[in-house]
Amino acid sequence: MENKNGIVCGVTSNDAGAVQKDGNSEFLHPKFHGWFAEHCPIWPGEAHFLKVEKVLFQGQSKFQSMMVFQSSSYGKVFVLDGALQLTEKDECAYQEMITHLPLCSIPNPKKVLLIGGGDGGILREISRHASVLQIDISEIDTMLIDVYKKFFPKIAIGYKDHRVTLHVQDGTAYLQSVPSGTYDAIIVDAFDPIRPAHELFETPFFELVAKALCPGGALCIQAESLWFQPPLNLEEVTASFRKVFRGSIEYAWTVVPTYPSGVIGFMLCSTEGPHVDFKNPINPINPDHVSGVAEGPLKFYNSEVHSAAFCLPAFAKKSSIGSKA
Amino acid sequence: MENKNGIVCGVTSNDAGAVQKDGNSEFLHPKFHGWFAEHCPIWPGEAHFLKVEKVLFQGQSKFQSMMVFQSSSYGKVFVLDGALQLTEKDECAYQEMITHLPLCSIPNPKKVLLIGGGDGGILREISRHASVLQIDISEIDTMLIDVYKKFFPKIAIGYKDHRVTLHVQDGTAYLQSVPSGTYDAIIVDAFDPIRPAHELFETPFFELVAKALCPGGALCIQAESLWFQPPLNLEEVTASFRKVFRGSIEYAWTVVPTYPSGVIGFMLCSTEGPHVDFKNPINPINPDHVSGVAEGPLKFYNSEVHSAAFCLPAFAKKSSIGSKA
Repeated sequence: MENKNGIVCGVTSNDAGAVQKDGNSEFLHPKFHGWFAEHCPIWPGEAHFLKVEKVLFQGQSKFQSMMVFQSSSYGKVFVLDGALQLTEKDECAYQEMITHLPLCSIPNPKKVLLIGGGDGGILREISRHASVLQIDISEIDTMLIDVYKKFFPKIAIGYKDHRVTLHVQDGTAYLQSVPSGTYDAIIVDAFDPIRPAHELFETPFFELVAKALCPGGALCIQAESLWFQPPLNLEEVTASFRKVFRGSIEYAWTVVPTYPSGVIGFMLCSTEGPHVDFKNPINPINPDHVSGVAEGPLKFYNSEVHSAAFCLPAFAKKSSIGSKA
Repeated sequence: MENKNGIVCGVTSNDAGAVQKDGNSEFLHPKFHGWFAEHCPIWPGEAHFLKVEKVLFQGQSKFQSMMVFQSSSYGKVFVLDGALQLTEKDECAYQEMITHLPLCSIPNPKKVLLIGGGDGGILREISRHASVLQIDISEIDTMLIDVYKKFFPKIAIGYKDHRVTLHVQDGTAYLQSVPSGTYDAIIVDAFDPIRPAHELFETPFFELVAKALCPGGALCIQAESLWFQPPLNLEEVTASFRKVFRGSIEYAWTVVPTYPSGVIGFMLCSTEGPHVDFKNPINPINPDHVSGVAEGPLKFYNSEVHSAAFCLPAFAKKSSIGSKA
């Protein structure tokens, strides 16, 4: 199926007996029957296949289609509108980095907003921060939340934190209702990867984010893989954010094996106010400590990995970016 | 076909008319006809597909089978015994890191040995070091070299360095002929990824490497992906190397989109003698400078990426390793 992200995929009839039958299902060579195929037009010419042990859920909410399957090598996998969203094996790399890169870069975060991220994994990670008093999440799709609670309890556990309030509302609408300067940090996990000229820049979305942040507040949003073709022009994307965010603007990246090219980037932006040095975390997390509703210590993030995430290969540094002098 | 690395792959009949017809070719859904499928038993349950524009070469040397194809998204691709060896798009990440991680960690390297690496890309990278007086390469398969020279001239350009001497000889046999303490650095690009209990530890290979190195000399060899299951036990692999190398032992990693899981590791070891601090390059390369036979500046490596390569995720640090105190 073609989804809003332009990703085509399908699951072939599999040994467990479940079949996804629509006009676009992939019926492959017998060897790859029962495999999930992700083939994304923004990454033409390559496809990543995961072996399906059992399809656990297929459904359609008001907003999107969902599928959960047990893979043979990555644990349970969640597919949204045909695009792989997360796997149990590597979700830690994404969820921990998108959360702690901003939250460990600012002192004493108290109020945090998550836009999207309905799975609850980012909530679980925010929950590790004892300084946080209020966690708001703006997520439109309650069916998605229910599916995660049923099939991914270690991810949806984030909702068990008593500081969490769910706002079943579109992110832009929610932001419009928020008084200026409310949040210390806003994490956005709701759009396809941000790149220069992304349609989101044509809306007031980022202005609303900036307005909702306190001075020196931090935004973190998923950005493109460095291997994107044509190569991500960091100068251009920085210039786009610079129109709205007057503090620091940095690009970081992490590895996620099941995402196209195996890496994904993040844009980190701060508003005018106290300087935010995203590269050097001033609010570290004790790697052995378990806090909040998470059931174990961090799996991926640590302070070294935090700083390393901002080290860019030579080809990316050529369009290098940095804090406003 | 099943190769010595246990990798099964095939290319389906493709639009360009070339067909790889053997008993194991994959004839997939029409959508994936003409794609190369890498499906590796050490990474069960996942497969990576690349679209083939045109098969440019297929052949069999005394030692191994080779295929070169033009992919639609990664440039030309070289396949050895069915396993993807490199692509033009991402070879920089591998070749530059496996070379400069060791060579930038030691002062003034003069004599360097490459075992394997017949493509010439690592030679090209060694060539950037002006201090180097002698570059020996031990490679058994001259047909592989010829195929690279024909189809990948920007990689095989490494052979044009006048400091290079090719020894058409097995690595172990070559090492046996080398006087003790000959080399400042040895790079090994000849085996499947090293992990604990790798069969190579049952041979005298690493002892011969250590003997061929001068005091404080450095070895770099491809190691496993951190996402390998069961997770790579760095303590165990370090203990294996510690039996032979009395200096520093470190694990580093880089991203290579077309390798399974998108990352690959390296073991860096030094012999007893002057301390080698692999994490902090003391012999940096000017990122804007073009030297040796390379046609342009570094694409991937820089000093920041060098140090970042040693920062390990929390799950890997639990079996953390380090220099001998």
